[in-house]
Amino acid sequence: MKATFMYGAGDVRVEDVDKPALVEPTDAIVRTVRTCICGSDLHPYHQMPASEQGAPMGHESIAVVEEVGSEVTEVKPGDFVIAPFAYADNTCEICRDGFQTACPHGGFHSTLQAEFARVPQVNGSLVVVPGVDPETASEELLASLLTLSDVYLTGHHAAHMADVKPGQSVAVVGDGAVGLSAVLAAKQLGAEQIILMGRHTDRTDLGREFGATDVVAERGDEGVAKVLELTGGHGVHVVLEAVGHMPAYVQSYEIIRPGGVISRVGVPQYEDAPVGFGSLFGKNARLAGGPAPVRAYLEDAIQQVLDGTINPGKVFDRTIGFDEVPAGYAAMDGREALKVMVDPAR
Amino acid sequence: MKATFMYGAGDVRVEDVDKPALVEPTDAIVRTVRTCICGSDLHPYHQMPASEQGAPMGHESIAVVEEVGSEVTEVKPGDFVIAPFAYADNTCEICRDGFQTACPHGGFHSTLQAEFARVPQVNGSLVVVPGVDPETASEELLASLLTLSDVYLTGHHAAHMADVKPGQSVAVVGDGAVGLSAVLAAKQLGAEQIILMGRHTDRTDLGREFGATDVVAERGDEGVAKVLELTGGHGVHVVLEAVGHMPAYVQSYEIIRPGGVISRVGVPQYEDAPVGFGSLFGKNARLAGGPAPVRAYLEDAIQQVLDGTINPGKVFDRTIGFDEVPAGYAAMDGREALKVMVDPAR
Repeated sequence: MKATFMYGAGDVRVEDVDKPALVEPTDAIVRTVRTCICGSDLHPYHQMPASEQGAPMGHESIAVVEEVGSEVTEVKPGDFVIAPFAYADNTCEICRDGFQTACPHGGFHSTLQAEFARVPQVNGSLVVVPGVDPETASEELLASLLTLSDVYLTGHHAAHMADVKPGQSVAVVGDGAVGLSAVLAAKQLGAEQIILMGRHTDRTDLGREFGATDVVAERGDEGVAKVLELTGGHGVHVVLEAVGHMPAYVQSYEIIRPGGVISRVGVPQYEDAPVGFGSLFGKNARLAGGPAPVRAYLEDAIQQVLDGTINPGKVFDRTIGFDEVPAGYAAMDGREALKVMVDPAR
Repeated sequence: MKATFMYGAGDVRVEDVDKPALVEPTDAIVRTVRTCICGSDLHPYHQMPASEQGAPMGHESIAVVEEVGSEVTEVKPGDFVIAPFAYADNTCEICRDGFQTACPHGGFHSTLQAEFARVPQVNGSLVVVPGVDPETASEELLASLLTLSDVYLTGHHAAHMADVKPGQSVAVVGDGAVGLSAVLAAKQLGAEQIILMGRHTDRTDLGREFGATDVVAERGDEGVAKVLELTGGHGVHVVLEAVGHMPAYVQSYEIIRPGGVISRVGVPQYEDAPVGFGSLFGKNARLAGGPAPVRAYLEDAIQQVLDGTINPGKVFDRTIGFDEVPAGYAAMDGREALKVMVDPAR
C-alpha cells in the first residue's frame, strides 16, 4: 500500500509498504476514504533533521473499517467512520472530563496519510457516520466530515475552551484552515463581532463567509491598534490563536481585554512566554487551549454537518492522489493551497 | 498624622506628615480604623533600591469617612467603610465585566498605612458596612472586615477565577495569609479535597481549620509526587497559587490535571514562564488570575462576615500601633507573624 514518510525538512516521500495488521484486540484496520495534510505537518517540514529512517505522517482520516480485533464492539467491518487525530479509551476519568487528548491509554496518530492504517483503542476513538455511503456521498460532504477528524474541531475547541458566549467580541489570529475553522466555530457559539487577523484575501474571504465581521490585515503594533479601534479601545473578550509562533502570542495578549480569554490551538513553537504583570496577570487575562479532544465533540459535529448547519469542508481547496502528496506539502508550505485533501482513488 | 514610608529594602519609617486634603470632587478623606501589612509589601521590602524620597505604603483599610467631595453620593461623613485595595469608577464596561482592578479610571492605593488617607473614585470604591459601629465592634469582627479590603477576597478571587465547583480537588500553593484565605474560599465554593502545600505547622493548622483536607509539607519533586498520590495519579482540578515565585509556578503545572485551571494571585516576580507543550498546552491546562477586583465581591462577603459564615480575620496574629510598623514588617518578613494589623489607637 502507499504511505507517506518524512525524511527531513522538505523531504516527503510516498512509499510502497506492507499493509498494517491487527496488534491489540482493541485495534482495527481501516481503509482510507480521504486523508489530508495538516498545518502542523509543516512544522517538521521546516525543522526535521535529515534521517535515514523516514517518519510516517498523517493524523486525519475518514475511512471504512476493514477488520477489527476481538475486543472491538463499537464498530464493525464496512462501517464508515471518522478517526479523531488522537485515540483514547474514552472511559477513564480524564476522558470523562472531556480531555481525551490526555488519556493515559491514548496517543496521537501518525500513520494516517496512507491507504490503510491501524487504529488503536477503537471503542473509544472511531465514530460511525450514520447513514452515509462514502462511495456515493458528495465531495462536499466528505470534505466536511474529514474536517471533523481535526481541523474544524480544533477551531471549535479553541472557541469552546474560551467559553465564547453570544454577544462577545472575538479575534482570530491566523487565517490558515484552523483559524478559519475557529471563525466558523465562534459564529456557531454566537459571537457578535469576529475579527479575523490575516493577510491573504482568498482566505479572509472564506473567513467572511464563515462569519468574520471584520478583517485586520495589519500585523504587530498596527494590527493591535486596529483591533483596539474596532473594540472601543478595550480589546476583545476572546482571542483564538491558531498559529503557534511567538508573535501571534504577543499579539494575543496585546489585544485581549481585561478578564478576557486567550485560547490557543496553534501548537506552540516555544516553551516560555510572557505571563507576568505586563502581559496576562495585570489585566486578569486567561490562557487556555491545547490539543483538541475531538472525540468529545464528534457526535454533535457530525449531526451539524449532516443537517447542513455547518460546511467546514470549504477549507479544502485542492484534492490530490497519493503520488502527489509531496507536491501537496510544497503547495501548502508555499501558501498556494489552504488545505490539501488526499483521495486514494486518484 | 502618622504615615508609613519605605526608603529602600528593609528600611520602613513612620513619619509625621500633613493630613491629606480633598483634591477631586469624587474624593473622600477617611480616618483609619484598622490597616495592615500585606505579603506583597514584602517584595519592595526585599528589592527596593535605597532612595532619598520615601515611597508611601499601604493598600488595605477599614475606615470612617471624615469628609467628602461635592460629587460623592454613595457615602457620607461618619460612615464605616471598607476600602478595596484598588479604586475604580465601577460604572465602565470593564468594571461591569467584574474586573475593577483594570478600570481605566482607577488605580491601586499606596497610602493607606496612615492615620488618614485620601480615597479617589469614592462612589465606585468605598462600601459601607451596614449596622456596625467600629468603636464598639469586636476585634474579631474588625479583623474579618479588614480582610475584605484585600487578603480574603484575593484568595476568593483565585478560587472564583478557577471556577471551583463542588466535588473538585484543589491544591493551594503557599501557606501565607492569601493561601489560607484561598483554602477558606475554596471550601465555601464546595471543593471536596483541599490540599494545602506549606511547611509551617502553625499556618497549616489554621489551614485545616479553614477547610484543608490534606497538608503537603514537601516541596519540589517530592511535593508533586505527594499530590499525585493524593489524587489517584491524575493531579488536582484546580491549583490556587498564592506565592508569586517561579518554583510555585512550576509546581502548579506539575500537579494540575489535564484540563485543570491554575489560578494565580501571588503577584508574579517573573515575566516569562513555561506555557508550551511540556507545561500547559499539552494537557490543556488553563492559566487564570490577577489582581483581585475586590469591589465585585464586597457586598456578598460583608454579608458572609456579618452573619458568621466566614471568619477570615483569623489570619491576623499580631496587632500593633503605628510606631511599631517597622517591627511589623520585620516580623512578617521573618515569619514570626503571619499577618500584622495596625490599630492607630495603640
